[in-house]
Amino acid sequence: MEKRRLISENDKPIRIAVDAMGGDFAPAEIVKGAVLAAEHKGIEIILVGIKKEIVKYLPQKDTSHLPIRYVEASQLITNEENPAFAIYRKPDASIVVASKLVKSGEADAVISAGSTGAMATSAIQFIGKIEGISRPAIGSPIDVLAPNTILIDCGANVDCKPHQLLSFGIAGSVYSKKLLNIGNPKVALLNIGSELGKGNQAIKASYPLFEKSNLNFIGFVEGNDILCGRADVVVCDGFVGNILMKFYESIGPRAEEYLKVKIKGKIPMIGPVKKLFKDVFSLTQMSQTTSIGGGLLWGVNGIAMVMHGNIKAEQAARTIVRARDTVNADVVNYLKEEMTKINDN
Amino acid sequence: MEKRRLISENDKPIRIAVDAMGGDFAPAEIVKGAVLAAEHKGIEIILVGIKKEIVKYLPQKDTSHLPIRYVEASQLITNEENPAFAIYRKPDASIVVASKLVKSGEADAVISAGSTGAMATSAIQFIGKIEGISRPAIGSPIDVLAPNTILIDCGANVDCKPHQLLSFGIAGSVYSKKLLNIGNPKVALLNIGSELGKGNQAIKASYPLFEKSNLNFIGFVEGNDILCGRADVVVCDGFVGNILMKFYESIGPRAEEYLKVKIKGKIPMIGPVKKLFKDVFSLTQMSQTTSIGGGLLWGVNGIAMVMHGNIKAEQAARTIVRARDTVNADVVNYLKEEMTKINDN
Repeated sequence: MEKRRLISENDKPIRIAVDAMGGDFAPAEIVKGAVLAAEHKGIEIILVGIKKEIVKYLPQKDTSHLPIRYVEASQLITNEENPAFAIYRKPDASIVVASKLVKSGEADAVISAGSTGAMATSAIQFIGKIEGISRPAIGSPIDVLAPNTILIDCGANVDCKPHQLLSFGIAGSVYSKKLLNIGNPKVALLNIGSELGKGNQAIKASYPLFEKSNLNFIGFVEGNDILCGRADVVVCDGFVGNILMKFYESIGPRAEEYLKVKIKGKIPMIGPVKKLFKDVFSLTQMSQTTSIGGGLLWGVNGIAMVMHGNIKAEQAARTIVRARDTVNADVVNYLKEEMTKINDN
Repeated sequence: MEKRRLISENDKPIRIAVDAMGGDFAPAEIVKGAVLAAEHKGIEIILVGIKKEIVKYLPQKDTSHLPIRYVEASQLITNEENPAFAIYRKPDASIVVASKLVKSGEADAVISAGSTGAMATSAIQFIGKIEGISRPAIGSPIDVLAPNTILIDCGANVDCKPHQLLSFGIAGSVYSKKLLNIGNPKVALLNIGSELGKGNQAIKASYPLFEKSNLNFIGFVEGNDILCGRADVVVCDGFVGNILMKFYESIGPRAEEYLKVKIKGKIPMIGPVKKLFKDVFSLTQMSQTTSIGGGLLWGVNGIAMVMHGNIKAEQAARTIVRARDTVNADVVNYLKEEMTKINDN
């Protein structure tokens, strides 16, 4: 397993189609991040977008030795647009063109900081889904406090049906096994109580499906169980997952702001104390941008990854490097196998 | 306004029916908490439950001078029971008997750490609802990091309809005005994006209702906006609110656990540094048990409050004192007035 995650000398580089135009700080930060990523071993970057815009943001230093190519795409889908309509009306959108590169085999992965909905819709439309999956989901470890716990779905789907939640559980289980090396991941449904009969309709209806599956299903967990490792995979609707993830990430910075005012002048913020506080305030960050597989759209028949809309260059570079590792871990084929087992049940 | 929250010498004591049997550590911790609360000005405690069990947990010292009465109730509703069935089948349950004391005017408030569902159902059944409210909701300020922001509903309702979410917005707005003294509270719907068209069906359908209302509606906010004060009232389904609240409360203790291992021996945990860390780890606690109005079932035609199931004596005492202040703030009548205005629109 571990071997899959390393790039051997003989491996061909992993070709990653980067949507240069998507994101709050695109193209600037995405282009800078892609250049940083291109300096890593085993990566070839395909920057997709309006080339004359993209090149403005290349670093001053010579980048001609780096494995970076350009594919022209004249259009852009914004967050405000309905993904399905937008993809239909803008066939030359960067996200569409980038997804098609995976479909045609010209790229091994596509990655975007643009609209999550547009990325998901485009991936489904042009790369396709794994059999048995009705909608792909985003899974992410909960760094730093629970890096071995996967939260899935982090925001690709809302109003999920029980069979969709089950497919998230399967994807999360594969994530846990193949990328975090957990042998028999404990899978739980996120709920407002641990007793049977608690919860909303979708969660109550999902329980028997999970129980019948061959997942290592441990039942319901509550909000306060997420960080304590009771479950390795915490399954939820993307509405809940997205709110939780964004809330979690806001706590560290908010606590820092709060304490800066409160302790001003009282504690000398020097040396190890300063360092320690810096660590404390960075405890609450999700791995969508830091961990292997973070931001992957699980269920797409290929590697399609989303990044935070507000991502900056260095994080973008890390995510692109993670995309390489995710391709090498061959998770799409693993998930296909797992889905077959479930369907055989 | 402020005057309402103070107890004048001439005020009659506020009579609080405490469900002595509900809660993970009941009756011990509830009884101890009630005795502590009875030492406060302007409070009369009515302990409801099995008296011969209750008296076992009275403190050794003489309590005969304290305003404590007992009302016998022979049954108990557990978390595992369906609230509606349980209330029907157990007419002598402590929660039922305590609620009826409010209905009959023998108590000014009822409070329980037992099943939230049983408390809500019992309150609706025996105390009744305010006109225009279909289901009561739990609102709570987000102490310590956002003590002026109300999250509502924190877990009394799931699968909420748009008109229910609107009534939570109205209740939250009254909370903010009357208990936090915010003049024109900004009300927002919690969503996974700020753009129109984002979100699940219930949230999307709620938007026009909020827009038409006379609330100071500011639109959608996301998970990362909750703590930053963008909205004074954050409205959500109780499924989301309950998970968020429990998750939030788990972060401080989890961070402490994490850091204890990490910094062992590296930083001397003495004096102000130790104190500061203690403060940091208690930053994430909801006010259900600490703030005025925290845990109130907004929409019940009387004061009915829930406490955390795992509450201990001192917190329980604080919540009972808060119940007194909530009665004095006359929030039920304020909410009735606000509901009338909405219905007149």
